[in-house]
Amino acid sequence: MIIKILTLFPEMFKGPLDTSIIKNAQDKEILDIEYINIRDYANNKHKKVDDYPYGGGSGMLMTAQPVFDSHAAVLAQIPSSKKVRTIYCSPKGKIFNQEMAIELSKEEALVFICGHYEGVDQRIIDELVTDEISIGDYVLTGGELPTAVIIDAIARLIPGVLGQKESYEDESLYSNLLEYPQYTRPQNFRGLTVPPVLLSGNHQEINTWRRKASIKLTMERRPDLLKKVDLSKEDKEYIKFIKTDD
Amino acid sequence: MIIKILTLFPEMFKGPLDTSIIKNAQDKEILDIEYINIRDYANNKHKKVDDYPYGGGSGMLMTAQPVFDSHAAVLAQIPSSKKVRTIYCSPKGKIFNQEMAIELSKEEALVFICGHYEGVDQRIIDELVTDEISIGDYVLTGGELPTAVIIDAIARLIPGVLGQKESYEDESLYSNLLEYPQYTRPQNFRGLTVPPVLLSGNHQEINTWRRKASIKLTMERRPDLLKKVDLSKEDKEYIKFIKTDD
Repeated sequence: MIIKILTLFPEMFKGPLDTSIIKNAQDKEILDIEYINIRDYANNKHKKVDDYPYGGGSGMLMTAQPVFDSHAAVLAQIPSSKKVRTIYCSPKGKIFNQEMAIELSKEEALVFICGHYEGVDQRIIDELVTDEISIGDYVLTGGELPTAVIIDAIARLIPGVLGQKESYEDESLYSNLLEYPQYTRPQNFRGLTVPPVLLSGNHQEINTWRRKASIKLTMERRPDLLKKVDLSKEDKEYIKFIKTDD
Repeated sequence: MIIKILTLFPEMFKGPLDTSIIKNAQDKEILDIEYINIRDYANNKHKKVDDYPYGGGSGMLMTAQPVFDSHAAVLAQIPSSKKVRTIYCSPKGKIFNQEMAIELSKEEALVFICGHYEGVDQRIIDELVTDEISIGDYVLTGGELPTAVIIDAIARLIPGVLGQKESYEDESLYSNLLEYPQYTRPQNFRGLTVPPVLLSGNHQEINTWRRKASIKLTMERRPDLLKKVDLSKEDKEYIKFIKTDD
């Protein structure tokens, strides 16, 4: 997958996308990430990339010209056979979730435009952006962190990026359910013990315990997610049992 | 505000928290951020910090001992007069939003525990964590990126961090409404023009146009947010107008 990131702060990506699995994915040539400094494309003498908003208001907006021209330069580098999606992160966008991550992980080429300051001139969004995405209902300093978040979520879904494929399959099995509690050695840590069933070696019992723990946690914390879960007959009986128990 | 970050990958924070406003906030001594490598606290010879999950399953979990001991060391460094909240990011947590950011921005001391691999031993969450937080319904490689996101959202709300205080006030005025489109110079960019009202100099008309644009966008994209907005009589009339227009 080709990823091009248009940003005023390429150095913000140094840590997040240079570590751990994203680094491995680049070393394995599964991901080809390039950072483009929008400022390099500013036509004016002082390489100015922002200006005051029309109609008043505080803060500065990123101007159209450097973004349009850096975007055009990047598109020219991507083979024309590849479909390109251009993503802009903002709180106005469609809420990012795991289904969207799965969908984007199948694309061949993604371009990210990172806004900063108060945002970007609307003509950039109207003309260049195919997907305006929000990673959540909160305000951040710029589009760099959300872009890193989206790339991290996508990258681990691309075949070959995670060490064992099971990791991802395991998660999809529990799609829309919150994860059951997990424990590792020692059995007794300073008086805190592991639930005995997990030490039983009985895989059916362990699976049942985990499924129930996931369902109970999801009911308590995120009842909105439970509606999306593909529930078995046993799941439904357990839910009825918890509800009558309250 | 004191922020302590317990992580296996301190280098992941280099870019995001070393740039832009978070850097300024540290230079101004408004934020005091310290990274603690959990691995430094591992008691065993090979500085091992992960182990297989009890009951089977793929991936590795972070073990209790290094996290408990690094957490204790960090608490010992924070003056006992300060209230400390310990945050763990996971998809199981309470969904982070702007209200939570405002609430956390008023705290004196925050400790973040960053999970990695398949997560952490549940005893860590049960015993050390006061707030389990999710930045959204998607799976990431670790807690480092969500931690950076939360710190970015919080930091810009602390008085003195943003250059002009208006920036934040402006946003709160539009609390729960999506932002109106913004434009900057030139008026005509390659044939794409700015809405004439923004060039009129009539502030009342501009404010009305912006308010209506925000309401319309929120209705179209996030009707769930509109319920939380404090709507004026004029707002309600405009909503009725749009609805009958459809």
